[in-house]
Amino acid sequence: MYLILLSGGSGRRLWPLSGDRRSKQFLRLLAGPDGNLQSMLERVSGQIAARLPGVPLCITTAAGQEDLIRAHLRAPADILTEPSRRNTYPAIALSAAWLKDEKKVPDSETVIILPVDPYADDRYFDTLRQMEASVCAREADLLLMGITPTYPSEKYGYMLTGAPCGSSVPVTRFAEKPALEEARALLRAGALWNGGVFACRLGWLLDTVARHSATCRYRDLLNRYDRLEEDSFDRVVVEHAERVACIPYSGLWKDLGTWNTLTEEMGTHTYGNVLTDGTEQRLHALNELDIPLVVMGGQDLVVAAAPDGILVAEKEKTPALKSLLDHLPNTSRYREGPDWQQRTLWDRTGEGRVHHLSVSAGGVCPLPSSDRPRILLMLTGEASLTRQGTPQQCLAPGVPVPLNAHTAYTLHAGAPCACICIEQDH
Amino acid sequence: MYLILLSGGSGRRLWPLSGDRRSKQFLRLLAGPDGNLQSMLERVSGQIAARLPGVPLCITTAAGQEDLIRAHLRAPADILTEPSRRNTYPAIALSAAWLKDEKKVPDSETVIILPVDPYADDRYFDTLRQMEASVCAREADLLLMGITPTYPSEKYGYMLTGAPCGSSVPVTRFAEKPALEEARALLRAGALWNGGVFACRLGWLLDTVARHSATCRYRDLLNRYDRLEEDSFDRVVVEHAERVACIPYSGLWKDLGTWNTLTEEMGTHTYGNVLTDGTEQRLHALNELDIPLVVMGGQDLVVAAAPDGILVAEKEKTPALKSLLDHLPNTSRYREGPDWQQRTLWDRTGEGRVHHLSVSAGGVCPLPSSDRPRILLMLTGEASLTRQGTPQQCLAPGVPVPLNAHTAYTLHAGAPCACICIEQDH
Repeated sequence: MYLILLSGGSGRRLWPLSGDRRSKQFLRLLAGPDGNLQSMLERVSGQIAARLPGVPLCITTAAGQEDLIRAHLRAPADILTEPSRRNTYPAIALSAAWLKDEKKVPDSETVIILPVDPYADDRYFDTLRQMEASVCAREADLLLMGITPTYPSEKYGYMLTGAPCGSSVPVTRFAEKPALEEARALLRAGALWNGGVFACRLGWLLDTVARHSATCRYRDLLNRYDRLEEDSFDRVVVEHAERVACIPYSGLWKDLGTWNTLTEEMGTHTYGNVLTDGTEQRLHALNELDIPLVVMGGQDLVVAAAPDGILVAEKEKTPALKSLLDHLPNTSRYREGPDWQQRTLWDRTGEGRVHHLSVSAGGVCPLPSSDRPRILLMLTGEASLTRQGTPQQCLAPGVPVPLNAHTAYTLHAGAPCACICIEQDH
Repeated sequence: MYLILLSGGSGRRLWPLSGDRRSKQFLRLLAGPDGNLQSMLERVSGQIAARLPGVPLCITTAAGQEDLIRAHLRAPADILTEPSRRNTYPAIALSAAWLKDEKKVPDSETVIILPVDPYADDRYFDTLRQMEASVCAREADLLLMGITPTYPSEKYGYMLTGAPCGSSVPVTRFAEKPALEEARALLRAGALWNGGVFACRLGWLLDTVARHSATCRYRDLLNRYDRLEEDSFDRVVVEHAERVACIPYSGLWKDLGTWNTLTEEMGTHTYGNVLTDGTEQRLHALNELDIPLVVMGGQDLVVAAAPDGILVAEKEKTPALKSLLDHLPNTSRYREGPDWQQRTLWDRTGEGRVHHLSVSAGGVCPLPSSDRPRILLMLTGEASLTRQGTPQQCLAPGVPVPLNAHTAYTLHAGAPCACICIEQDH
């Protein structure tokens, strides 16, 4: 059994906290077992370590997230980087070929692919074991997880099933994102939600990939990644597979992708510098800025303030946030790595940008090349600078250092260090 | 007739826009006659210029606001600076002595003292003429404006009156900030609100000041300003005066001192970078930050985002804002002059502060002395620096300039100019 976690999920459904450069699986907003806040990736990888110890694990992700993933992982894992951000079919095809060609996993091995962010209880991970058993018993070519619906959602895929066969039930029909009336009818007919978990033998998966993409070699797929069919694994493979079955799962399962669902599972109601008058009802207020947020009254509001912007919303309105944000330019003022954070303090066309960098002791913070010269000023700490890999100089607090245009630098912090980096527009 | 406008009103009742360094009379939030937004001071001084042309005017204010007042004035005026911020009795005593000793105004002249921020219609200013006529006719020693109450407010002073005498009505009793039941009884008894407008002969006022403060000389009062009775003119003088009458006024009059009253008179519902989903009801959203503010839904909310903080409040809760803010440190990240703005982008103890300065062409922006060395970097524009009054150097964009500790500098902008000023903590 080999687990592949698909770590996509960049996007602005949890704006202003999530965005292009900051994926929701890294937001530490959930109550962990020890009382501390944990991220979705910390939670899921911790559950895997507890319920499926020793099962090899691979995280398939976009470039640039490797270091952050490593910082959040609570189980040993390989990290496979996609050459570009595409849909789930290319990511799964690449992962399968990588298992075969690079990890030498045999064709007979069961592979289970799941999203990186299911908010579920431990039984969810026990169900993966049952899916493996069904694959080994050859009850079907492809095993899905069938989640017992809790309401007639219009945003999930549904599966209608036939008579049980062994521990699994054959899937007879798929219905993707039905309208409300159809969703109600599906619930009455006993349909299950498709949880986006796929289990099969690696050999079957490679055959399927070879049929769709003319190859199942890792190097070939890597080279032509940008030309692979950009569609979901559901549409390309699952809906056309001949022998598909599912294992039902009726425990906790939630998609915490929007503020209204996420806040239901948040351990704390306020986070950061927040002051309320005590008359608020069911408020969630998160403030990542270093100015105070004051809330007086209000019912069922979520207020989130972050370097990228400020959201004030009735929770029930937040599923529409992503499309509302189409009216805003997609800029990001926050980046983070495992041991550094960069936030933009000022950004105005014609003037330039001012960034604040915060690096932990021993941390290594990239200063990617820019087409303008910059000024770097260390406020506090100890750090040295390398220029395109070559040691350059030690920084002294209060002494501005010019950085050349078109040159990448790296900051190495000997002690916790804070810097200002100023980039002008002309 | 001589008008004295008392410009106090710093404080946090309109936080985060108003604060210690930014008084509400300078906030440009009201719809002006030309469709542009105007400040309270612009509105009131414009009304005075229109309804009382040629009447000499003095603004009595705290130190540091002179330049801003001048930028907002729409009528010629003298500006008298209080040595320190005290209550209305010291401010009026100083103003009276200044009129006599510095402006050589005769004792027989009628002086009318009013707040800088009455939100009223033009008839309010016509009523000042009637007050002057009553003073000249010696109907009373002291004439007040008696405003017809519109609801049983607990936050105003009330006046009960006797039978009319000429155009005025004698005041028989004062009741300051009554409880709700008493306020209702006062309304039934025909009481009027005390609008804080006082008219009298200058000679009578000086006699009164001499009796209370042992002198009515301007220089004496200036020198002992910090020891003058720190109380309101109402309590020190009005409530003990023998012959007090009022002129009724029943036109528009509002105290726009809190968000719920101010937003009722605001011309626009959103200001700055604000995006809403269209489902909001009676929202007022003001954003002075350069990151977007997104609002989805909500009823009767005011949302204000400024360098000092973020407020999200049900409008009806905002009268309690000032006392809620007692829980927050009283720091300010924004300062402005007539031709410059300074905002703090970053402020963290142990690291220091980063400020952004914006100066108009021809503007002169003070950089007050600091106990730490600073780095000044011009992003764009043309400017030169003087050091304690001595021309120092021209600034070049992108070239950092060290500023000494314990030294005051001034920035002179030849063209619109933007700078970053960085002050470290060690």
